[in-house]
Amino acid sequence: MPLVIGIAAETTPGERRLSVVPDVVKKYLALGAEVVMQKGAGIPAHFRDEAFESVTWVDEDVDVCAAADILLGVQPPSLKRIGKLKPGAVVLGFLQPWFDAKRAERMMEKNITSFALELLPRISRSQSMDGLSSQAAVAGYECALIAADHSPKFFPMLTYAAGTIRPAKVLVIGAGVAGLQAIATARRIGAMVEAYDVRPETREQIESLGAKFVDTGVSAAGLGGYARELTDEEKGKQAEKLAKAVSQCDALITTAAIPGRKAPVIITAAMVAGMKPGAVVVDMAAESGGNVEGTVAGEKTWINDVLVVGPTHITSRMPVHASEMYAKNLFNFISPFIKDGVLTMDWEDEVMAGCCLTHDGQLRHAGVKQILGL
Amino acid sequence: MPLVIGIAAETTPGERRLSVVPDVVKKYLALGAEVVMQKGAGIPAHFRDEAFESVTWVDEDVDVCAAADILLGVQPPSLKRIGKLKPGAVVLGFLQPWFDAKRAERMMEKNITSFALELLPRISRSQSMDGLSSQAAVAGYECALIAADHSPKFFPMLTYAAGTIRPAKVLVIGAGVAGLQAIATARRIGAMVEAYDVRPETREQIESLGAKFVDTGVSAAGLGGYARELTDEEKGKQAEKLAKAVSQCDALITTAAIPGRKAPVIITAAMVAGMKPGAVVVDMAAESGGNVEGTVAGEKTWINDVLVVGPTHITSRMPVHASEMYAKNLFNFISPFIKDGVLTMDWEDEVMAGCCLTHDGQLRHAGVKQILGL
Repeated sequence: MPLVIGIAAETTPGERRLSVVPDVVKKYLALGAEVVMQKGAGIPAHFRDEAFESVTWVDEDVDVCAAADILLGVQPPSLKRIGKLKPGAVVLGFLQPWFDAKRAERMMEKNITSFALELLPRISRSQSMDGLSSQAAVAGYECALIAADHSPKFFPMLTYAAGTIRPAKVLVIGAGVAGLQAIATARRIGAMVEAYDVRPETREQIESLGAKFVDTGVSAAGLGGYARELTDEEKGKQAEKLAKAVSQCDALITTAAIPGRKAPVIITAAMVAGMKPGAVVVDMAAESGGNVEGTVAGEKTWINDVLVVGPTHITSRMPVHASEMYAKNLFNFISPFIKDGVLTMDWEDEVMAGCCLTHDGQLRHAGVKQILGL
Repeated sequence: MPLVIGIAAETTPGERRLSVVPDVVKKYLALGAEVVMQKGAGIPAHFRDEAFESVTWVDEDVDVCAAADILLGVQPPSLKRIGKLKPGAVVLGFLQPWFDAKRAERMMEKNITSFALELLPRISRSQSMDGLSSQAAVAGYECALIAADHSPKFFPMLTYAAGTIRPAKVLVIGAGVAGLQAIATARRIGAMVEAYDVRPETREQIESLGAKFVDTGVSAAGLGGYARELTDEEKGKQAEKLAKAVSQCDALITTAAIPGRKAPVIITAAMVAGMKPGAVVVDMAAESGGNVEGTVAGEKTWINDVLVVGPTHITSRMPVHASEMYAKNLFNFISPFIKDGVLTMDWEDEVMAGCCLTHDGQLRHAGVKQILGL
């Protein structure tokens, strides 16, 4: 019997992505696997059943689970779905490993081998599997569009018959994958962009995108590439410079989300109060608490004359390409271990081992084990 | 007594623009005029009262009307406001002259001199006064952003660690000011853009923006630069080529609005039915009936798996710059006739005469007179 890859419909409200796309299904089939999908699973991501070739369709999610040797997903499987899996089956996807001891326990009981893509060791070879990065790129792009769409000003310079409109000023906080994509997108639309990150080594990347690095005159660079704790004086200086940049921008995009942790509050209520009338704030970290004081997740909030947007499920705003990228990430992770329809795990493999949450009845990830207290 | 320029708050639901901005108020003052504004009039456009210098503030709109020698507006004044104007006062702004015989009659009774910016003769000298064009540029930009923001795909090409995302295909119908701005904006964001206009002379403008002209092989160019009626065979050929382009695009933006007339239906229900799953349609003409069969003004409508967006008050999505452009248009129109705080009208002036709706108790515009039957 060939290996069965199972894909059930995502059920989390607001989630529109899927863990496979038609081209990636073809690749699994080419490895000798069989693909079992729940009817209509691709609809929220705009993939009709007809778009998938040579797939076995079932009506219920539990039928997918019962058949699957590897269950793929975007959001973690429910306890019910875990209960329907075959003992020893593999679960692969975002599993939010830090937040749910019950799910981890249930998977251990059922002897499920689970790989949480959030735990991926970030080494050069694993870049093509990095779902957090690919989805962050989507989120950064979307946040720049949300900012442009909600701004009462043109982002680009515009010359018309009666004069010239000056380009808008956009400030991006955080220059990880999401922040860099937000910078690139705002620049493409035509805004003047400034960006800030606590890591001074991001300056070059920010500048290479045509944006200006907000220099607070404070560097957190410490020994061995680690950030050091700032002194109170340094913190004050940093906050002052940042507040000035915030007060001058037309749109502010904050991207300082940390997987598994509450987002740091970087923009205080006082900074928001000092913003221009009509300024727009897009807080990419709204779902994990927000980088901006006053953000409400899933809402657009007027604070005086400043619009604070707290988008949720940002990547689901662009489900076709977000799914395509994510599906490839999952495939790149698992496909090296599939040959002629057989999955052979390799615990010597740094990436596979590092990504493993549960296996053989054990919680294998030391960091998660400590946090969950299991 | 110096000339009084009056600005009351706009009251049409959804209207956020204003007919002056702080810099333009300064220019009126520099011509010796006085400016009387209703408190809070600028708030919807993000201009606080404090932003305007040397303005006389009043509480009620009727107090503005009673004081004004020239009443500026974005939307036409209500009958109540017209009733409060001084006999012989001037009204300037968008007046929707074709639609409201009652308003025109009321202005004639009160001996109001009204200038409808929609009637502006489009000659080289009047370009800097052309409010329809400046606002069309705003609308075209916004529609491209709406399309990008609602698309389930990236507009730009994106190379990431696991592959390359192909750029989205955007099709723009109508290459007037709005269409060209939509093309330019979609190109900036990174999409591949095709555009179509019945006027073959738009090809060069479309191509100069890096877009591809959809060549239907049919030209409506007739004698003397006028469009000629197409034969049935030609119409069929045109529809077929257009349907093909529509079926291949990821986002469709239609911009064929004609001031004073119902928008032409260009995209049939059958064409929408032939679009890709997840495709987005932004119908800029939604307010005047729509270019797309199935558009609902003010709504987002799913037709099968195609999202049809029918935005209303599009320019009010960007009130700061839309107001700035519009305010300059009005100023450029009227300021040549103001000197040392005195307005002197010149009926020999082609632009002033051509823009005039009512004067001296008469309806002066022949075209409008015919349509209204007055």
